Amino acid sequence: MPEIVTAAMLVIGDEILSGRTKDKNIGHLADIMTAVGIDLKEVRIVPDEEDEIVAAVNAVRARYTYVFTTGGIGPTHDDITADSISKAFGVPCEYDAKAYAMMEDNYRKRGVEFTEARKRMARMPRGASHIDNPVSMAPGFRIGNVHVMAGVPSIFQAMLDNVMPTLRTGTKMLSATVQCPHGEGLIGGPLGDIQKRHPETIIGSYPKFGEGKFWTELVVRARTQEALDAARVEVENMVAGFSKAG
Amino acid sequence: MPEIVTAAMLVIGDEILSGRTKDKNIGHLADIMTAVGIDLKEVRIVPDEEDEIVAAVNAVRARYTYVFTTGGIGPTHDDITADSISKAFGVPCEYDAKAYAMMEDNYRKRGVEFTEARKRMARMPRGASHIDNPVSMAPGFRIGNVHVMAGVPSIFQAMLDNVMPTLRTGTKMLSATVQCPHGEGLIGGPLGDIQKRHPETIIGSYPKFGEGKFWTELVVRARTQEALDAARVEVENMVAGFSKAG
Repeated sequence: MPEIVTAAMLVIGDEILSGRTKDKNIGHLADIMTAVGIDLKEVRIVPDEEDEIVAAVNAVRARYTYVFTTGGIGPTHDDITADSISKAFGVPCEYDAKAYAMMEDNYRKRGVEFTEARKRMARMPRGASHIDNPVSMAPGFRIGNVHVMAGVPSIFQAMLDNVMPTLRTGTKMLSATVQCPHGEGLIGGPLGDIQKRHPETIIGSYPKFGEGKFWTELVVRARTQEALDAARVEVENMVAGFSKAG
Repeated sequence: MPEIVTAAMLVIGDEILSGRTKDKNIGHLADIMTAVGIDLKEVRIVPDEEDEIVAAVNAVRARYTYVFTTGGIGPTHDDITADSISKAFGVPCEYDAKAYAMMEDNYRKRGVEFTEARKRMARMPRGASHIDNPVSMAPGFRIGNVHVMAGVPSIFQAMLDNVMPTLRTGTKMLSATVQCPHGEGLIGGPLGDIQKRHPETIIGSYPKFGEGKFWTELVVRARTQEALDAARVEVENMVAGFSKAG
């Protein structure tokens, strides 16, 4: 039996919702999840508002194996993710002794003042464990099934690299792509019939449009090679049939 | 008093969650909403699953002035947005006579068969009105406060252009950006104090990292010029003070 592991992502930040910053983390997480066999089932982008973050994290952490958040863990007043996650879990948000000592030591060595703002980055929910940050030191954290990471893409990616070996992964979703020179309107009926005959697969049809012309990418996905191949062959034959007819 | 108009976006599609397609519509909608004075408050990306779409659209349409969806309105079996939105509103999903006639006529003129798959694109919730599609004809639709549009970016953008003049807009959020050569850790404390003194503004701090160096973009947002300017001047003075001190 295939093992199913699921995930949701929470992108925290007014700057994404205002358009000022274009998110680059959703696509990266989606790629990594697919590569290792975790099904990303939902993404939510929420503003820098405590009630919204608390409600969203509680909604998704109850439903999925893992939750990944990005954004809001810096040193400024609008970085409220640690407080919000603590509230969602009903635990105090407090200075983590290990993070505090590590950061204090690092700033001292660099001759940089350990300001109140910088100290904020050592705060996390009681009971959380660290996610190492090789780029800028201040750690992310994990509590329960929720992994809290930075929004700056280079730091998010480095933190995620550290998280990945700790995750349980599922049976990978295999996929095969069939390029189809016809529009969806022509092939939609027969393609739906193939899907009905292969319920253990997920057949996606992605319309492409450019230079005044429609074509289609047909993607078969399944968790066993046998199921994948059986549906793929039918899709290929269907496309070939239309091309002959045309 | 400023008038507040809010919106949520629902991105529908397995291909975004699997990473196969990188979304380009969220950033575009965010930019347009900000430009006209509508606050985009939440985005959700959901899979091609009816229950998930119904739950998400019902959650957001009750909370925000407008909802915009992208994806799932093509002719194939995995295009289930029209059915899902109908279910969310508790109305039948049926062929729209005007859309059907328009599409039938257009396909006949082009000598293209009006297949069962193409006919699917004339289906919409009873009582919905059209959103014109100048690119590929098959219309999107509006029902209640929900605007259902295509996922292909060029078609989504064209449909959104047709929707924008029909929307009520709010008092625009004005913004001013102050470039800060210092990292957030240095300025975080004083910046938080400025935010406290200017509760009618939203002051965002966006860390930038590159070439081994941190700097910060400080963005003041407000719905009146007076409020914006008052906070902006304080932020500028703070940054200048740190630069002198350094």
